[in-house]
Amino acid sequence: MSLRVRIIGTGLIGTSLGIALSRRGHAVTLADPSPTALALARDLGAGTLPTAGSEAPEVVVVAAPPDVTGVVVAEELRRWPEAVVTDVASVKVAVLRDAEAAGADLSRYAGSHPMAGRERSGAVAARGDLFDGRAWVVVPNEKSSERAVSLVREVAAEAGGTVSVMSPEDHDAAVAVVSHAPQVAASLVASRLRAVPERAAALSGQGIRDVTRIAASDPQLWTQILAGNAHAVRQVLGSLRDELSEVLDALESLESGDGVGAREVLARVVSHGNLGHAKIPGKHGAAPTTYSVVTVLVPDKPGELARLLHDVGEAGVNLEDLHLEHGLGQPFGLAEISVLPAVAEQLAEELETRGWQLHG
Amino acid sequence: MSLRVRIIGTGLIGTSLGIALSRRGHAVTLADPSPTALALARDLGAGTLPTAGSEAPEVVVVAAPPDVTGVVVAEELRRWPEAVVTDVASVKVAVLRDAEAAGADLSRYAGSHPMAGRERSGAVAARGDLFDGRAWVVVPNEKSSERAVSLVREVAAEAGGTVSVMSPEDHDAAVAVVSHAPQVAASLVASRLRAVPERAAALSGQGIRDVTRIAASDPQLWTQILAGNAHAVRQVLGSLRDELSEVLDALESLESGDGVGAREVLARVVSHGNLGHAKIPGKHGAAPTTYSVVTVLVPDKPGELARLLHDVGEAGVNLEDLHLEHGLGQPFGLAEISVLPAVAEQLAEELETRGWQLHG
Repeated sequence: MSLRVRIIGTGLIGTSLGIALSRRGHAVTLADPSPTALALARDLGAGTLPTAGSEAPEVVVVAAPPDVTGVVVAEELRRWPEAVVTDVASVKVAVLRDAEAAGADLSRYAGSHPMAGRERSGAVAARGDLFDGRAWVVVPNEKSSERAVSLVREVAAEAGGTVSVMSPEDHDAAVAVVSHAPQVAASLVASRLRAVPERAAALSGQGIRDVTRIAASDPQLWTQILAGNAHAVRQVLGSLRDELSEVLDALESLESGDGVGAREVLARVVSHGNLGHAKIPGKHGAAPTTYSVVTVLVPDKPGELARLLHDVGEAGVNLEDLHLEHGLGQPFGLAEISVLPAVAEQLAEELETRGWQLHG
Repeated sequence: MSLRVRIIGTGLIGTSLGIALSRRGHAVTLADPSPTALALARDLGAGTLPTAGSEAPEVVVVAAPPDVTGVVVAEELRRWPEAVVTDVASVKVAVLRDAEAAGADLSRYAGSHPMAGRERSGAVAARGDLFDGRAWVVVPNEKSSERAVSLVREVAAEAGGTVSVMSPEDHDAAVAVVSHAPQVAASLVASRLRAVPERAAALSGQGIRDVTRIAASDPQLWTQILAGNAHAVRQVLGSLRDELSEVLDALESLESGDGVGAREVLARVVSHGNLGHAKIPGKHGAAPTTYSVVTVLVPDKPGELARLLHDVGEAGVNLEDLHLEHGLGQPFGLAEISVLPAVAEQLAEELETRGWQLHG
């Protein structure tokens, strides 16, 4: 059944959603304060521009910057008295509060959050398959009607998302832990590098590279996200600071005190990290799986990694994860191939037979 | 010129070093408190067991746990009055202090630190190419003779390491920033996941996966490392806590105060993270390079990733980095291929021609 969907905001998310829904046969109309962005989205196949004779939308999706989303949600609810309205901002309590403050009819509103997007932005980066297989959280409020929730779920599913439902508070608490606090931690760790000499930074290995990868993210967007989820982020970062202070006290005690109990604190922090890390779900949203890693030396020239993975495929083994590490000043890298433990030994033998040099 | 090298401690590092040096024709003798570990290292080709008639070593490498390294260094210096002694612990000031306190002749000692090893441990995980292309920092003290420094450099280079020289203080300050503080931050971020419901953890994306990858590390080893570098780690984590406190104050001001200046703090922290992140050297120890990323949808079945990388190779493009991301509950993943910006467009066209579906 075809839906009439109006999308406000033709950035990365709005345009990608328009493309995805248009491809599935839904009738998408587009709006954006920037005529240029709007025309680009239309040209990319995200939908059409509304005309005087256009029928009213059944669903409105507000894909505006987080800090104006709530107000736009309220405006759209007023403008289309029959429509269900949702939004795609990555914070949900603040948007709901803003919409409520603007006098919105919350029964026709249910928020949502597709976990997609990352660093790139703008319609130019949009793709119709952006949401395929990504988590898309639908976030009803206490007044949301069944019809509102059901239509928003339908939009999310039609766009390709894997739908789950959470309250605004649960959503914000969850993303504070799995996304917002990690962003702050990564930025703070990376920030320490500013003052160090080049030769110290040159010792950076894969560990700090991984920890700080998201430190390259956009400051403006993240300021809005962190400000929009201030309460939940503060809870998470506050408990992180408490434990960090314990670590600092332990280090001080080791440096200039008696050091009694200090090693217990350090061991506990790293152990708790082990436990938390194990809660991150594995591939395909399955329970965490411990994979075996086969590490192979790969000459750094075109085609070598392909040849390696061809040989992995020939061995009939499915690669669960792949991690590349580059030697410092050397013409090769290390490929760490994660596979199910049961096939690791067979794979290692197969690769050695084919002339690959394995690392321990 | 063949060296007589004695290695104390046949764990991952000691055994790997023995294999590497033996292969290069050096005469390696091995020692370890555990007869089983010792016999295993010998069987792996790491060297021979010393006999009554063995000549004295020219170089002794102490590859013991960090917290006993300094004492063993002093013992070995006493036992072999002509030999140069080094060690491979990942902290250097504490080892030097321990050796000095034990009355060591520091002129014949120069510390060192091969940046290799990671999570796996034991002789069974050893490989002769463990150090190939990895940074190996040689760390003289104020009394180290030229001969001591030169012999330790030779051992590091013969093992395959890329040698640099630092003072103990500079070394410890550098690894506190690039390795030890990131470990603590990763553990603390991962630790926050312990208390969250499964459905919240299920929203974990690639960001938190990267930030917390090293949170799976060994608590016992890391307790020794952090305790052994308490001073430098405290400096780094102390400044991190100060900035974290600014973030928390800003969030509190946004939540319940007037919020004036709060967004500036958040934007500054993320911006500073951008700057620090940019200081991490690129591949091959070169200056940081910004790569362009081409993202491709890869069906999750054996051989598909190999076929993709084969096509990348056929396009004549050298892959600089590769990152895999898995869809949640979907039978495919996303491969993010980093290449030099000049060839990104050509690669994208080539891959689309070959039938690959690209992401924005």
